[in-house]
Amino acid sequence: MADNNSTNATRAPLRLGIAGLGTVGVGVVRLLRANAELIASRAGRPIAITAISARDATRDRGIDLSGMAFEADMAALAARDDVDVVVELVGGSDGPALALARAALANGKGLVTANKAMIAHHGLEITASAEARALPLRFEAAVAGGIPVIKALREGVAANAVARIYGILNGTCNYILSTMEDTGRDFAAVLAEAQAQGYAEADPAFDIEGTDAAHKLSILAALAFGAQIDFASVETIGIARILAADIAEAAALGFVIRLIGIAEIDRSGAGPHLFQRVMPHLVAADNLLAHVDGPTNAVVVEGNFSGRLLFQGPGAGESPTASAVVADIIDIARGMDSGFEVDRSFSVPVAELAALAPAESGHRRGRAYLRFLVADRPGVLAEITAAMRDAGVSIESMIQRGRAEEGGQVMVAMVTHEGPESAVAGAMALLDGSPSLTAAPLVLHILDS
Amino acid sequence: MADNNSTNATRAPLRLGIAGLGTVGVGVVRLLRANAELIASRAGRPIAITAISARDATRDRGIDLSGMAFEADMAALAARDDVDVVVELVGGSDGPALALARAALANGKGLVTANKAMIAHHGLEITASAEARALPLRFEAAVAGGIPVIKALREGVAANAVARIYGILNGTCNYILSTMEDTGRDFAAVLAEAQAQGYAEADPAFDIEGTDAAHKLSILAALAFGAQIDFASVETIGIARILAADIAEAAALGFVIRLIGIAEIDRSGAGPHLFQRVMPHLVAADNLLAHVDGPTNAVVVEGNFSGRLLFQGPGAGESPTASAVVADIIDIARGMDSGFEVDRSFSVPVAELAALAPAESGHRRGRAYLRFLVADRPGVLAEITAAMRDAGVSIESMIQRGRAEEGGQVMVAMVTHEGPESAVAGAMALLDGSPSLTAAPLVLHILDS
Repeated sequence: MADNNSTNATRAPLRLGIAGLGTVGVGVVRLLRANAELIASRAGRPIAITAISARDATRDRGIDLSGMAFEADMAALAARDDVDVVVELVGGSDGPALALARAALANGKGLVTANKAMIAHHGLEITASAEARALPLRFEAAVAGGIPVIKALREGVAANAVARIYGILNGTCNYILSTMEDTGRDFAAVLAEAQAQGYAEADPAFDIEGTDAAHKLSILAALAFGAQIDFASVETIGIARILAADIAEAAALGFVIRLIGIAEIDRSGAGPHLFQRVMPHLVAADNLLAHVDGPTNAVVVEGNFSGRLLFQGPGAGESPTASAVVADIIDIARGMDSGFEVDRSFSVPVAELAALAPAESGHRRGRAYLRFLVADRPGVLAEITAAMRDAGVSIESMIQRGRAEEGGQVMVAMVTHEGPESAVAGAMALLDGSPSLTAAPLVLHILDS
Repeated sequence: MADNNSTNATRAPLRLGIAGLGTVGVGVVRLLRANAELIASRAGRPIAITAISARDATRDRGIDLSGMAFEADMAALAARDDVDVVVELVGGSDGPALALARAALANGKGLVTANKAMIAHHGLEITASAEARALPLRFEAAVAGGIPVIKALREGVAANAVARIYGILNGTCNYILSTMEDTGRDFAAVLAEAQAQGYAEADPAFDIEGTDAAHKLSILAALAFGAQIDFASVETIGIARILAADIAEAAALGFVIRLIGIAEIDRSGAGPHLFQRVMPHLVAADNLLAHVDGPTNAVVVEGNFSGRLLFQGPGAGESPTASAVVADIIDIARGMDSGFEVDRSFSVPVAELAALAPAESGHRRGRAYLRFLVADRPGVLAEITAAMRDAGVSIESMIQRGRAEEGGQVMVAMVTHEGPESAVAGAMALLDGSPSLTAAPLVLHILDS
């Protein structure tokens, strides 16, 4: 029980060892300084950084590191007697980050991490280790930057059975897609600009291929549904094939295109199955996500009593991510005197998480946007529409834009009526290899409200 | 420390005494039944309702109350040995609800309440009482229905200095305003329809005059700024004077009209002052709140590291409110073995909340929408514009719509350039009592992004 007669300043501090002084690490040090008094008041005790570890001890990061011990070896950081909680900001699913996480828990330290890749791949192991040792483990910063959506799922909507969770989980992709929408420019040009402005990495593959969003989705799904994390089963399609013309067609039909991560429980078969998908979607204008522009994240949670909740904000960056890391630290500091609430990192003890088989996407029903680049010659439209008919796909609207010069390719776009995804897949199979198509068709699902 | 070897079912249950079986009370009973297994798994123990109290023991509420003791006297409910936590769902700022809250804490029970009026008026007293006795006190359901915004402020953004918090805090007003917008109908007609549909009470004064939103705003402000609740200082103006024509003018200018509660720290004078206002605002199309329609709540929190966060969802109703009440109950159940985190209902101990003097609104700068109903005769526009000039108000756009039949009134609407609110107030003072005006002018501030 807290000693309410002590002032915050005289209570024992929570002592941190921070590993990794990249963007987020620097943000955490800055935040703990800038808001120190306020944080001590809310945490009930001072938060002290006693030791740090980073690849380069001497690089000028624009922050004052005096008074903090420097450990070149992260294992040494995790073993220090004057560290209560290790803050892992190294990144990477395996390697040094994972070794540090294991070492921290083995040494009896609490663990705070912003590492979505590590949690997506090894979250169950790490959580089981923390629970077995009654140590606190938190990872709010792993998903959606400064938006407290992990806490919302674990605690805020804990009374609800969640049927579906979906959202915009990658700020880089959202910046690129919304900028393509605003400017009419092509993917490559906007990506280059995003890289120049710092909204995209020099190697953007992790973001634009959807891997980053898939990491986050797998964590959210585990929390929402009480299921074991299953990153490997996330169907993942990135944004690189989206053309400016796709965005223009979508807009004409009343949609925007966004990279959406969606997870839901499929009860159509024997027992519950877990459906997880990251791919660009057409988002209807009346959907909560239709107005999410720029490098923003937004998550929609559908609880059976709460109804549809939206959580939106900056999805990445030094300060928002630091806000989430320090929120976790404050949570741990608040619980220090009374014993940590240790078996709740995933809302239920990790041993109680269900092992759900992945769902087949063909069971799902919905509308889809189909785009074909085709040779400009007679009979092509008939071939496509015949394939739709033969596969049982009903077309709601279709448009053929312009006419290419000298026998080049033209674009045919259509929106289907609601129907099984398997029928659309069947139509695509019928058209596979057709010499009429000059590129593989693009299939995007429609996220209705 | 939790005994991880026990199953949830064999752990001691958390035993509730629920007072009040109106809409929310019935929702809580339904929710605890419907999601019982899931809740036990997340709470780490079963949640049992051992006793209830309501005005009428016999009324059929469509729920099974067997196995629960009935107490006609709420004081007896609060005194029962088989009750760990009292759930106050009676409502009303004083009277039976307040007596029950005091009795529950005096008897060593935890307290969960959905009562915004009671917290707005007596929250500091009740919280101090809970803290002195090391008892848990939670009130998530008091603000914004099922949206976990109290938790977000107390925990999710705890690392941040919050500069400003604002939002749509009353679903009834938002339903009325967005329906007026969609249909072009007048306030009275839409209110009558809202009452018929259950979106507005038979006596709608509490909602449409802004009192309900002001209760919620005062609670949010206390949490966001670490300040004592000061409901009495909330400047509160309702929506009854909004005309369909105002909404049309606003739309033509690119705005929607919403009842907005806004609180911020004013540092323009000596020491921080607390600014709190509930009034209809023009909301710019690029504001996060511009697309919030229907009986929805939405709260924007601006943290100095998190950036601008939006929390949105159903703002009231049986199920969403029950979701928030039971989230509080689960939080308490999770902490049962390890000792409650008792001094954090308002993020800091209540004794540390600052007593902030109310801010003068005249210090604020912004744009405003001014609407006049005037006699249709020469010289009226000159009189209004002269008053603007003399008070130093710069007009960005002005419109006079139509022309009344036979010397009736016409409407003049304008939007000002950014300037001090005191200048607008000065202009209104100059026009006060003018025989040219057939009704008091309407002044709405503009919520820019």
